[in-house]
Order: sequence, then structure tokens, then C-alpha cells
Amino acid sequence: MVRVFLDTHRALMANPMRLRLRSFASSASALNWEGGVSMVQGASRGIGLEFVKHLLEKNEKGHVIATCRNPNGATGLLELKNQFAERLNILPLDLTVESTIEESAKSVTERYGSLNLLINASGILSIPNVLQPETTLSKLYKSSLMLAYEVNAVGPILVIKLGLIHRKVNALGNLAIPHMWPLLKAGGGFGTERDVAVVANLSARVGSIGDNRLGGWHSYRSSKAALNQLTKTISVEFARKKDPIACILLHPGTVDTDLSRPFQRNVRADKLFTKEFSVQKLLNIINNTKHQDNGKFFAWDGQEIPW
Amino acid sequence: MVRVFLDTHRALMANPMRLRLRSFASSASALNWEGGVSMVQGASRGIGLEFVKHLLEKNEKGHVIATCRNPNGATGLLELKNQFAERLNILPLDLTVESTIEESAKSVTERYGSLNLLINASGILSIPNVLQPETTLSKLYKSSLMLAYEVNAVGPILVIKLGLIHRKVNALGNLAIPHMWPLLKAGGGFGTERDVAVVANLSARVGSIGDNRLGGWHSYRSSKAALNQLTKTISVEFARKKDPIACILLHPGTVDTDLSRPFQRNVRADKLFTKEFSVQKLLNIINNTKHQDNGKFFAWDGQEIPW
Ligand SMILES: NC(=O)c1ccc[n+]([C@@H]2O[C@H](COP(=O)([O-])OP(=O)(O)OC[C@H]3O[C@@H](n4cnc5c(N)ncnc54)[C@H](OP(=O)(O)O)[C@@H]3O)[C@@H](O)[C@H]2O)c1
Ligand SMILES: NC(=O)c1ccc[n+]([C@@H]2O[C@H](COP(=O)([O-])OP(=O)(O)OC[C@H]3O[C@@H](n4cnc5c(N)ncnc54)[C@H](OP(=O)(O)O)[C@@H]3O)[C@@H](O)[C@H]2O)c1
Repeated sequence: MVRVFLDTHRALMANPMRLRLRSFASSASALNWEGGVSMVQGASRGIGLEFVKHLLEKNEKGHVIATCRNPNGATGLLELKNQFAERLNILPLDLTVESTIEESAKSVTERYGSLNLLINASGILSIPNVLQPETTLSKLYKSSLMLAYEVNAVGPILVIKLGLIHRKVNALGNLAIPHMWPLLKAGGGFGTERDVAVVANLSARVGSIGDNRLGGWHSYRSSKAALNQLTKTISVEFARKKDPIACILLHPGTVDTDLSRPFQRNVRADKLFTKEFSVQKLLNIINNTKHQDNGKFFAWDGQEIPW
Repeated sequence: MVRVFLDTHRALMANPMRLRLRSFASSASALNWEGGVSMVQGASRGIGLEFVKHLLEKNEKGHVIATCRNPNGATGLLELKNQFAERLNILPLDLTVESTIEESAKSVTERYGSLNLLINASGILSIPNVLQPETTLSKLYKSSLMLAYEVNAVGPILVIKLGLIHRKVNALGNLAIPHMWPLLKAGGGFGTERDVAVVANLSARVGSIGDNRLGGWHSYRSSKAALNQLTKTISVEFARKKDPIACILLHPGTVDTDLSRPFQRNVRADKLFTKEFSVQKLLNIINNTKHQDNGKFFAWDGQEIPW
């Protein structure tokens, strides 16, 4: 308890904003989250679900909020809920429906009051009869470009966004909306081994413009390049405001999930990672993130990827 | 006439596809466009209008297609039409209305049958009461992100796109749609000083992720980063198919137009270019474009910009 107090005191001194923000978290006593509070957005399956599992298993005090479009159908999460009970909180969030982002931010604010880690693990590459990764410019459609952008670039950034003044009426007379930014500011590295809260956005090497040698996959590539630019842009603001947050982009490698399944034929067996392997590597990067990593783009092995 | 024949013969040998594509251009005799055919998309005002003016004035044989949302209100273009008559062809094209892109491609196909230069000069940064360049993440709205993406990234790429089989019924039983790609393949550098047709997409230095030190302008920055990625992606396909096309991205500098006007206060006088100066510099880059420039991002002074 003494350590908790000292850590909190140090953190408040380093960042007086926390004091003010704490006061918004009325019903939650933020000081209690000794193992830290993590949120995984896009947690129903694949890499997101694996993150939830690792976070719960490797940190016996940590609390995890797992969001997904359809909690009732998320069998993997429901199994974890049986096992980890109170430490796992499942919330509905569909990136294409802004009100669900607002509702989950409200819920996290009320229950936890702070956040130390936000992983945006969602992403789309192909959806039967809706979205096909393009093999040529002649198969590029506006609807695919717009959908990939909405889900892969816009959604994750809206999740991070700050409500102007949480729970207060803003200048326009509207009830301002709580998103995650103030929760991350309140959280910082508190209760974890880090000095900073981390926002980790799952990008992809094929989002790199400099590394683009094969072409194709126009919608996916451009949405990830845009996600990279948006993440970089907000990292600049976090740094300028001296927020205790580092925002990073991660490439998980080619991982055996539903997303990569249709394209695994051309992948060498030793280049196709299990979810366990990839998530272990990515959590290693996340846990070692420092202030100066803010705005960087890392592959699973810690190497930086060119823009 | 002999030179025209020899040039054409050489070009056909280098690229047999031209022969097949020529046959689509039924009513137009592509061999006649000795000064080349250029299209400027987004030509009602600003840099686009200045490109049209320069292209008509500096090349007394060149033909120019100028597209804009509202030809009747485009006074600058109408004045040029009075002066240059047949050499200037004004067509309606709104990037947010795909049918207008198709109609203009159809019209260019019928009248010219080939294209040697396509400049996508349109772009949006701020629109009163609709789109505000963001100063902070807390002022980021989904509608702004989507609109900037639609106009700045998706639209220009749709203009370049190829219809599957021009004027033939495709596998799905739909009438395939002509866009600009086959016209550019047919054109190559023919009638110009270059070996290649050029697609020049107007990007912006603030679209560079590596160069992003100030943050802000999320919607504009991410749409231009996406445009850069899309342009790079199609340049890879053009290269692989050995099409006689080079696709480049251009940063015009900070230029005195409607787009930059609200932000000129913080620009040093010697850093604010006239449209004339910028377009002269950019045309210099375009006219000297070689095969190996395909997929590159140049500033007005010819320096490459990092992604
Ligand atoms: N797997 C790879 O090889 C690979 C490589 C590079 C990058 N990545 C990136 O890594 C991340 C995770 O990929 P993955 O392989 O785990 O994919 P996955 O197995 O297909 O899972 C995708 C996840 O995104 C969620 N999602 C889709 N649309 C959503 C929406 N509108 N709102 C909220 N959630 C939505 C899905 O939820 P539902 O269950 O509701 O559909 C699912 O949980 C993605 O960003 C992907 O681009 C993956
Ligand atoms: N000026 C600068 O300092 C600067 C710096 C860096 C990059 N750029 C880039 O350079 C390009 C030209 O900018 P500018 O300064 O000439 O801007 P501008 O003076 O504001 O002109 C913008 C042009 O885009 C057209 N446009 C807007 N929405 C359109 C749509 N939906 N469909 C078709 N056309 C549309 C406008 O047509 P309407 O007349 O119909 O609105 C107008 O012709 C842009 O891509 C811009 O991002 C400019």
C-alpha cells in the first residue's frame, strides 16, 4: 500500500493534470488498480482475443476491458469470463457506430476512472461479398476504400479521442462525450512497470509506403497508411501536452488468424506465426515502451518499419 | 508526318498493347495529337487553373481537357476557352459523383482516344461549416475524416482507374466503364518530349508521416498519406505491366490560393509562392519525368519528400 501511495504521489507530481482528471472518475477509486487497467478493442477473436488472454494470465492483478461487436457471440471471451470473472469486463463496441464507442468510454470511466493500456486490435482485410483485397487497380471500388478507411483508420482514432470536457456541458451547449484520452491521461503508467500509458494500434507492414514493392491490396494498404499518419499526428499532440501517454503502431507479423487465412498459401511455414508467439512478442514491446517511443512503428521483433 | 509515323511505330513496337487499345478509340485518330493531350482535373481555380493556362500557353499544339464541378461558373476556364477555342475542352467532373468521372472518361475516349498527361489538381483542406482543419484530437470528427478521404484520396485514384474491358460487357454482365488508365497506356509519351505518359497527383508535404512534426490537420494529413500510398500502389502495377506511364506525387509549396488563404498569416512572405511560380516549377518536373521516377514524391524544387 505504501508503494501504491508513493507511486501515485510521484505520478501526480509529474503530471498535475491527473489530479483534476481524477476528480471526474467519481464512482471509481482509480488508486485501487494496482495491476493496471487495459482495454483491448476488437477482442472477439484473432490477435485481439489472444491479447486479452495473455493480459489476464500473465498479470494476476491486471484488469482487462475487452470490447467487441457482439459480446453474446464472442465464445472465446465468454470462456475467459468464466475463468477470470471480475478481472474481465466485456463491452459492446462497433467501430462503425460511434454511439457504441461513447457508451464504452462512459462505462470505463464509471467503473475504472483510468486506463493504462489501450490496444486497437480490430481490422478488416476481406469480407466475403463485401470487401475483396484488390489484385489490380481495375478491381478497386469506392465502397471498399471507404469501408476499409472507416474501420481500419477512423474507428481506432475515434476510440482514443478526448471528449472536450468530460460530463460537462461544452461551449456549444452539448453534453461533451467521454472517449479514452482523459482516461489514459489519468492512468499513465500507474500500477504497471512503465512510466507511460500505452496506446498500441495494430497496423501492418503492407501499410508502409516505403516498403511497398508488390502493389495490390489498395484499400487495406491505404487505410493502414492513414492509420499510421493519424497515430503519428496524435502522438505529436500527446508529446506537446506532456501527457503520460505513448502511442505506438505495431506490425504483428503474418499471424495464423481468420484475417490471413485466405492468403496463407504463399507464406512459408516458418513465417506464419501462431497468435501466442506474436502476442508475446508484441506485449514485450508494449511493456517496454518508453516516452521516447511515442509515435513509432514497430514490427513484432522490435525493428522499426519505415513509413 | 514522317516523324509522327516513326515515333508511333517505335512506340507500338515498345508496347504492343497500344495497338489493341488504339482500336477502342474508334472515332478519334490518336495519331493527330502531335502536341500531346493533357487533362487537368480540378481546374476551376487555384493551381489547377494555372496548370491549364500554362499548358495552353507554353505548348502551342497541345490539347487540354479541363474538368471541374461546375463549368458554367468556372470564369477562369471560360476566359481561356475564348482565347484557345478548340485546344481547350471543359468537362464536368465532381470527384464525389462517380458517374461524372465515367462520363468524362467516355468523352475523352471518344474525342481524343489517348492521354499523355493527367494532373489531379483538386483538393480540400477547409470548407466553411463543413470541414475544419483540426487543431487537436478533441476536434476530430468522423464526417471530416471521411469527406477528406473521399475527395483527396479516393477521387483522384478513381479518375486514373481502368474500366475492365472498355465498351464490352464484362463477366458480371455489366457494361464496363472507361476511366483514364487505358487512355494513358495508349498515349504514353507520344507527341511530347517524354518517353512516358505522366500521372501527377497533387499531394502535400504535410501528408508525409516522417516529416510530421507539428501534428494537427488530421483529416487532411491522413487523406494525403493515403493518396501517397494509393499512388505508390498503382505505380507498382504500372511498372510490372510495363505500361508507358509514370505516376508521381507533387508538393507545390505553400501557394497563394483559396486553399492556403486562411493559414497564410504564419507563412513568411518569401515562402508563399505565386501560382505562376509553383506551376512553372511543377511543369518542369512533369516534363522531365522518366520511367524511373514512377512512384516518387517530389517537392516543387525537385527534392524527394520522405513518406
Ligand atoms: N493476421 C495477420 O497476419 C495480420 C498481419 C498484419 C496486420 N494484422 C492486423 O492485426 C489486427 C488483428 O488482426 P487479426 O489477424 O486478429 O484479424 P481477425 O482474426 O480477422 O480479427 C479481426 C477483429 O476485428 C474485429 N472487427 C472487425 N470489424 C469491426 C468493427 N466494425 N468494429 C469492431 N471490431 C471489428 C473483429 O470482430 P468480429 O468478430 O465482430 O468480426 C475481430 O475481432 C488487424 O488490425 C490486422 O489488420 C494482422
Ligand atoms: N495551395 C497550397 O498552398 C497547397 C499546398 C500543398 C498542397 N496543395 C494541394 O494542391 C492542390 C491544389 O490546391 P489549390 O491550392 O489550387 O486549392 P484551391 O484553390 O482551393 O482549389 C481546389 C480545387 O479543387 C476542386 N475541388 C474541390 N472539391 C472537388 C470535388 N469534389 N470534385 C472536383 N473538384 C473539386 C475545386 O473546385 P471548385 O471550384 O468546384 O470548388 C478547385 O478547383 C490540392 O490537392 C492541394 O491539397 C496546395
